Amino acid sequence: MLSFACDYLEGAHPLILKKLSETNLTQEPGYGFDSHCEKAKSLIREACGRPGADVFFLVGGTQTNATVIDSLLRGYEGVVAAQTGHIAVHESGAIEFGGHKVLTLPGHGGKIHADDLKTLLETFHGDFSKDHMVFPGMVYISFPTEYGTIYSRKELEDIHAVCREYSIPLFIDGARLGYGLTSPACDISLKDLAGLCEVFYIGGTKVGALCGEAVVFPSGNAPAHFFTTVKQHGALLAKGRVLGIQFETLFTDNLYFEIASSAVSLAMELRKAFEDKGIPMYIDSPTNQQFPILTERQVKALEDKVVFEIWEKLPDGRTVTRFATSWATTKEQISSLESLL
Amino acid sequence: MLSFACDYLEGAHPLILKKLSETNLTQEPGYGFDSHCEKAKSLIREACGRPGADVFFLVGGTQTNATVIDSLLRGYEGVVAAQTGHIAVHESGAIEFGGHKVLTLPGHGGKIHADDLKTLLETFHGDFSKDHMVFPGMVYISFPTEYGTIYSRKELEDIHAVCREYSIPLFIDGARLGYGLTSPACDISLKDLAGLCEVFYIGGTKVGALCGEAVVFPSGNAPAHFFTTVKQHGALLAKGRVLGIQFETLFTDNLYFEIASSAVSLAMELRKAFEDKGIPMYIDSPTNQQFPILTERQVKALEDKVVFEIWEKLPDGRTVTRFATSWATTKEQISSLESLL
Amino acid sequence: MLSFACDYLEGAHPLILKKLSETNLTQEPGYGFDSHCEKAKSLIREACGRPGADVFFLVGGTQTNATVIDSLLRGYEGVVAAQTGHIAVHESGAIEFGGHKVLTLPGHGGKIHADDLKTLLETFHGDFSKDHMVFPGMVYISFPTEYGTIYSRKELEDIHAVCREYSIPLFIDGARLGYGLTSPACDISLKDLAGLCEVFYIGGTKVGALCGEAVVFPSGNAPAHFFTTVKQHGALLAKGRVLGIQFETLFTDNLYFEIASSAVSLAMELRKAFEDKGIPMYIDSPTNQQFPILTERQVKALEDKVVFEIWEKLPDGRTVTRFATSWATTKEQISSLESLL
Amino acid sequence: MLSFACDYLEGAHPLILKKLSETNLTQEPGYGFDSHCEKAKSLIREACGRPGADVFFLVGGTQTNATVIDSLLRGYEGVVAAQTGHIAVHESGAIEFGGHKVLTLPGHGGKIHADDLKTLLETFHGDFSKDHMVFPGMVYISFPTEYGTIYSRKELEDIHAVCREYSIPLFIDGARLGYGLTSPACDISLKDLAGLCEVFYIGGTKVGALCGEAVVFPSGNAPAHFFTTVKQHGALLAKGRVLGIQFETLFTDNLYFEIASSAVSLAMELRKAFEDKGIPMYIDSPTNQQFPILTERQVKALEDKVVFEIWEKLPDGRTVTRFATSWATTKEQISSLESLL
Repeated sequence: MLSFACDYLEGAHPLILKKLSETNLTQEPGYGFDSHCEKAKSLIREACGRPGADVFFLVGGTQTNATVIDSLLRGYEGVVAAQTGHIAVHESGAIEFGGHKVLTLPGHGGKIHADDLKTLLETFHGDFSKDHMVFPGMVYISFPTEYGTIYSRKELEDIHAVCREYSIPLFIDGARLGYGLTSPACDISLKDLAGLCEVFYIGGTKVGALCGEAVVFPSGNAPAHFFTTVKQHGALLAKGRVLGIQFETLFTDNLYFEIASSAVSLAMELRKAFEDKGIPMYIDSPTNQQFPILTERQVKALEDKVVFEIWEKLPDGRTVTRFATSWATTKEQISSLESLL
Repeated sequence: MLSFACDYLEGAHPLILKKLSETNLTQEPGYGFDSHCEKAKSLIREACGRPGADVFFLVGGTQTNATVIDSLLRGYEGVVAAQTGHIAVHESGAIEFGGHKVLTLPGHGGKIHADDLKTLLETFHGDFSKDHMVFPGMVYISFPTEYGTIYSRKELEDIHAVCREYSIPLFIDGARLGYGLTSPACDISLKDLAGLCEVFYIGGTKVGALCGEAVVFPSGNAPAHFFTTVKQHGALLAKGRVLGIQFETLFTDNLYFEIASSAVSLAMELRKAFEDKGIPMYIDSPTNQQFPILTERQVKALEDKVVFEIWEKLPDGRTVTRFATSWATTKEQISSLESLL
Repeated sequence: MLSFACDYLEGAHPLILKKLSETNLTQEPGYGFDSHCEKAKSLIREACGRPGADVFFLVGGTQTNATVIDSLLRGYEGVVAAQTGHIAVHESGAIEFGGHKVLTLPGHGGKIHADDLKTLLETFHGDFSKDHMVFPGMVYISFPTEYGTIYSRKELEDIHAVCREYSIPLFIDGARLGYGLTSPACDISLKDLAGLCEVFYIGGTKVGALCGEAVVFPSGNAPAHFFTTVKQHGALLAKGRVLGIQFETLFTDNLYFEIASSAVSLAMELRKAFEDKGIPMYIDSPTNQQFPILTERQVKALEDKVVFEIWEKLPDGRTVTRFATSWATTKEQISSLESLL
Repeated sequence: MLSFACDYLEGAHPLILKKLSETNLTQEPGYGFDSHCEKAKSLIREACGRPGADVFFLVGGTQTNATVIDSLLRGYEGVVAAQTGHIAVHESGAIEFGGHKVLTLPGHGGKIHADDLKTLLETFHGDFSKDHMVFPGMVYISFPTEYGTIYSRKELEDIHAVCREYSIPLFIDGARLGYGLTSPACDISLKDLAGLCEVFYIGGTKVGALCGEAVVFPSGNAPAHFFTTVKQHGALLAKGRVLGIQFETLFTDNLYFEIASSAVSLAMELRKAFEDKGIPMYIDSPTNQQFPILTERQVKALEDKVVFEIWEKLPDGRTVTRFATSWATTKEQISSLESLL
């Protein structure tokens, strides 16, 4: 049955499998010291316009969030995030497992506002009880957010300015980074992004890879012994080549952006198909995730023919659903869906 | 340059890559709910002779050790292991990161002795200060050990008997399980092993997979919400299919054991090649890791032509080295090495 | 300068100091195995009407909260509390340090509502993503709350009923328990309270002791090896006698309740003094903490003559302040304050 | 029955109780901001010859060790200690609870050797696998040790020199510091000690106080927000005055050293009493703990008349016992014991 349930329904982009096969029997050192990781790091540094960047390859998103956050915070610090942020809701308490509180801000379509952040920090530092509280030690945002929305350059600059004012790092979860940067609504490039935060990652798992996230410290500002922290968090892959080969492929000939761009275009078509039938969107997402609001009857009619995700129930009985496209989505699949509406 | 540095130098067994390619564009649910994981679990249950076993797929060894141990221990408990055990030495403190102490026993060629274990437990429970100490809450062993050695059936039965006497679970790290079970020196089968412990894992990373470890709770005795614990530890792969496909392939037509067996045979040839030149072994390993003791001159002569691992320096100036074969090692590679000695 | 800043401004009730002196040179075993701890436990069991209760003495509140919560939760679980709860705001992340998330509910004058709790639990268990989230594993409330308010019998029964429905324990932080139970507005007794939760503690630090909190598991339901968990959390006092003597004294001749009652009466007089001057209260607290709302001019006028706590700024520029009475407050101090208003 | 079981059998030195009574009803701010803490800090700075020292008061030893160690280590680091060290054996895994491994060195009568430490650090930094291991991030020693022994100036200087060479801090657990510094065998002063480490604490609990340990960072080198770390670890006493008053008293008129010195003198008499009867000591302890080796018959004969601690069983069937004197021990008690031998 046709599925738009998420953006990790298929394996990997065929070029990745091809490269895995071609290199399969070459012997390479483990733990990321192979030639493919080296090449991939070099390509990523170039794509970011950051020749001095530190780049590390981890396996999955939750693991990457927990490792990066734990490496940057001191014991008495917590991480600021949107109430709807992945680390706040859907990581089974991985951040708290590492000993840190997630300090939440209101989510505005998944995004935090620089003003809210500033208020939180001002209030904290003005609180005469602050030494009995958790210090806000860094800021976490996702790009795109869990609702498919993206920050504008201005919004990122404002958030980053607040972070710099309080000397705390900004960390951008880019599990779906490609789908954000290639959105027609996006007004920044990867190079811009690298200048607007202290650390971010380029998601592979959801953008064409079997698995893998590339963590980038743009100014070569990785904390001391980050490799060991990765290992301690169980995030170090013995066959690091598997990650290296995938990112090497994705960052060769612009593949990462091309496949992401295709997914976003198809998402816009998918959206139009719903809107043409008078079905409204829950949120104005310019990326690969779309959130049609369906009536109970529409859900019933559709759910036998296509897989999608139930996002939440509205008070009026209607259901917010999620339909995601990916690097693997085809024009035919969109047409099939259209014919089912 | 030819390398015997470890058993994760190459990619994956070609049949795995083939299966990854064949299934690549089929849509499957994430997080291990795909059809391949189902099939692989079923094959593993059958191979273990345990139709009611709980099976979970995780990505790597350190992560698997930390997750399993953390899921089984209460806060006031620690895990007993050999001083040379992987969790005690080479996991960057992943167990302590989860809040638990590793309580060590002497290693005898990497193995613990049931007698030593019994003494530790008797001494602990007889200690009038025990309530101020860490409770031994489970036992960890590796099979084969970090030194390539394997426990005999009798040794395992004795250790397991002590564990049962004190009502603590026995956990077997099988990162290299295939190389142990197919050793000519091994007197147990996978089915036997499943009856001699409360939880173990079948290593994929080092036995033909790109990555992946299959955790087996033989009696369906996984702790409540183990899935959530896996997620919390960053060990849940979004594209669970990648693990499912690999274990499905490895447990079809006995592939896992055939490739492991080949590696062990070649390791015996490798060993003979050294011994024929009068080079002694540091330890009598019947599995895929061999530990020749080389003089400084021998190291110098060899290190330009073949990659191997420096294991440790002996007081007399000689060097213990490690040469490992794997599922990918060929007869030609052994011959090449032989000609270099 | 006269102070109403908090309820731990003075040392201990004189009878405690007297008893400490009288017993000072008697030799007693350490770690709570002394005769005074035994006697105190017996008196507390009697006061609770729970002859089989497990009683432990810890030193301070944050430590007690962290130890009890950590002893009851499994790794994948968190604790539900009001957004304004002490563990959520003012313990520097002690709960997260132990690896657990604080899942928050709206605070209604510091209290949670059974309805909100039920909704949270229903929503969680109905969420198809729940295995990727933190399980609500227990409920924490304070009695009185951080705002001086107390739960009615009905409210407690309702909350406890929800907890029992979902098989999760209810934990009552009684750092100021005496001031709650002796409030004229309170409709439950200590014996009632012991039947309305799975664990609670009787605060000593804020009710006449130098330090000390008595944790009560009413049905003898302390988790296994709780003593060791206490030790691990650094909460075990070597000279346990110091805690035993204090609680022995407080629970002899009803002292605990008498001194708490006196504080509450004086708080009511304090409140009346403010209200007589037309100064409103921020919240209707029937216990020893009162929250007058002062204008900027009133704050200025008062702060040179009496110490009080700034609680929060209101949008209209006025200031919520906190004035606390304690076991040590005298009628004369209230009169002095009155004359300053 | 007469007891020499430990050095925390009685309450507090009478001057402490007197001061607690005299100051009892004075209102003071909480959390260590009272006038007594200020005074005590000033007296301690003076006694240490360190006007710029940071001084903090915590409640007990395990808590202090865990808090200090956790505040100084990064996540990937562990603490080096003797195998017999308190943190390695008798703190129920409090250090691991904070996420850190205790890396052990052989104990020589409870002490570590600078040579062993240097070897450990050299070996670690020369290990090609070190990035997969726990980094030695600080060194912990106790003074006196758990066996009553003390380091000479030379031994401390050597250990400290190794620490400085590797840029890791030295932490001295002074739970019984007074008994060490006043031993006739001791060749350093408190001022010397303050120059031989990066942080240490002055034990109150075992040297005349009801409870309390004074942590000293001699060069004002406390880590940022150490107060908050103390709070997070549940080690912050609300009525900080209780600790301030005790240390103020102990550091007025040299009381701390006088009472410690008396205990050590009486321990020497106690030892002589045993030796005069031909009873050997297990270890040559020059401080307040003595370790007579008794035959089974001697144990039986003595245990009905005097309380002592069973330390360990020797292979030959004899028992190592511990007899401790304290600030509260009297000449009469020693005579009574003598008459029982």
